[in-house]
Amino acid sequence: MQADMNRQVRLVARPRGIPQAEQFALVTEPVATPRAGEILIRNHYLSVDPAQRGWANDEGNYSAPVPLDSPMRALAVGEILMSNAPEFRAGEFVYGWFGWQTYCVATAQAVLRRVIPSALPLSANLGLLGINGLTAYLALHRLGDPKPGEHVLVSTAAGSVGSFVGQLARIAGCHAVGLTSSAEKAALAQARYGYRRMINYRDTADLAGAIREACPDGNDVFFDNTGGPIADAAIRSMRLRGRIIQCGTAANASWTPVPTGPRPEREVLTRRLRWSGFIIFDHVAEFEEAATHLTQFALDGKIVHDEEILPGLEHAPGAIARLYRGENHGKLIIAVD
Amino acid sequence: MQADMNRQVRLVARPRGIPQAEQFALVTEPVATPRAGEILIRNHYLSVDPAQRGWANDEGNYSAPVPLDSPMRALAVGEILMSNAPEFRAGEFVYGWFGWQTYCVATAQAVLRRVIPSALPLSANLGLLGINGLTAYLALHRLGDPKPGEHVLVSTAAGSVGSFVGQLARIAGCHAVGLTSSAEKAALAQARYGYRRMINYRDTADLAGAIREACPDGNDVFFDNTGGPIADAAIRSMRLRGRIIQCGTAANASWTPVPTGPRPEREVLTRRLRWSGFIIFDHVAEFEEAATHLTQFALDGKIVHDEEILPGLEHAPGAIARLYRGENHGKLIIAVD
Repeated sequence: MQADMNRQVRLVARPRGIPQAEQFALVTEPVATPRAGEILIRNHYLSVDPAQRGWANDEGNYSAPVPLDSPMRALAVGEILMSNAPEFRAGEFVYGWFGWQTYCVATAQAVLRRVIPSALPLSANLGLLGINGLTAYLALHRLGDPKPGEHVLVSTAAGSVGSFVGQLARIAGCHAVGLTSSAEKAALAQARYGYRRMINYRDTADLAGAIREACPDGNDVFFDNTGGPIADAAIRSMRLRGRIIQCGTAANASWTPVPTGPRPEREVLTRRLRWSGFIIFDHVAEFEEAATHLTQFALDGKIVHDEEILPGLEHAPGAIARLYRGENHGKLIIAVD
Repeated sequence: MQADMNRQVRLVARPRGIPQAEQFALVTEPVATPRAGEILIRNHYLSVDPAQRGWANDEGNYSAPVPLDSPMRALAVGEILMSNAPEFRAGEFVYGWFGWQTYCVATAQAVLRRVIPSALPLSANLGLLGINGLTAYLALHRLGDPKPGEHVLVSTAAGSVGSFVGQLARIAGCHAVGLTSSAEKAALAQARYGYRRMINYRDTADLAGAIREACPDGNDVFFDNTGGPIADAAIRSMRLRGRIIQCGTAANASWTPVPTGPRPEREVLTRRLRWSGFIIFDHVAEFEEAATHLTQFALDGKIVHDEEILPGLEHAPGAIARLYRGENHGKLIIAVD
């Protein structure tokens, strides 16, 4: 391998739905040279995220779709080889929007966080210390305001964010109950992710009843990644002055036309709820503080973080489809060889 | 009139729906004597409130229904004639749960607020400084967090609370737009209650379009007393990080079965909304501070407060029905003769 060649995984066809391997191509081009204000990064680990589906499609999401014939948009962690930006120096490690490629020339705006050296592996910056762990920590603490002894209900509890929410709720002294879609995931979440009880909603004809049984005292916090019928039942389990964190709406594949459901206004009023929307990129200024806490929890053995690392860039094209098939065990990461 | 006789307006039959005059009776009984920990109050003004409908019915509302053959539950303002409670002295004026009667023996728990003497008339303690004005002030400021230059949308803008919200939003430097149900009320709210624009939703086939036209920049705060289709349209006019204050759900007469509507989860998430429920009696500890601000606004001529005072207890039995017919002009109050 030539040190000065950049290997890229480019999006070459617009997918409809979940991106498949054939919509990507491995392309090699010379490494670009950073200009004034830019840095050159050698990526070590690349992230595979459910949100890449939206970025690859033309769905009118939060961000513009990835242009065809350009490297797939992705979070990554790497080392700065050369810096023409005053805020960075060669030898520093950074986490940010560096794409599915071996080398990246970027401005400071692409960097989300300077990586703090610790005893944790560098790959942890994509899972525990990446947007999954940061979302769990910041959404739970900034919007959920969990207090010791309170009850926390989490949808998609075995997922990439939910697996941290249960553990962080336990660390905060709360009782966490989770919802997931299989008995296997329920057992995993109860064994490893801090949940006292798990509900397999696919195996439950009466979701409201199952929540009442698992949460006889009601819930102070509902950490919601789904919306839909799960949220309809959960909102009716809330205690007075409960907090709902809307972190995703995975239950509804389409919002055109807008799906209907039971009205929540009376629940918001009579239970004095506070229902807030959370999007992680609003909170970049708080990443370092959150990462410091998460690192310490991991070093103290209070939090587990599972990773599945695929060896080599050639695994990237099929990785999003693999994620949506649910075949990964833990945060799916690509090691750049 | 004998000074030591108490005239009461008692609920003598359980209404279905809006209480009518024939469900009440005027009864005279000796004034009770306050025991240890109790105070004797001479009521000066009695409040007539929409919530009395729920208290008189057996609706399973926030509070137990008024027992038959007891004085109608009501807020009132009066003077303490005798005090056996350490926190009160004879000669002080108080606002609280003293009922539709001339005299009331009560414990300190029945007092919501000690009346601060000012140049405002004593009756103002039932409207501007009563739960209407206090709700407008505390809900807007505690949950709405209005900042100068922001846009505030208010449902039931010409109502007992909304008429203060528009003025308080203007005082906070915001642009207020209101929704109401007639051209007459729209004109009144625009002329007197601080609203820049009013929307008569009864005269509008396309509510979302009418809101877009009246609020071309979107809204930072939605002060909602209705829920239902008005809220569905309003929530889709919210700007990023907008705040929704759920203060009432008047649009839905029944919640059994729960009415359906377009799902709000995606709006909460993508607009990063904060949607909170407000019930005034959670905020009793903040009443004095709010009343101090409201008094100063009125003395400075920054806020108007309309009152309609009915002379004499004998007007009480028909007063709730009068309120629901919309015949009153401003806060409906009964003067105790």
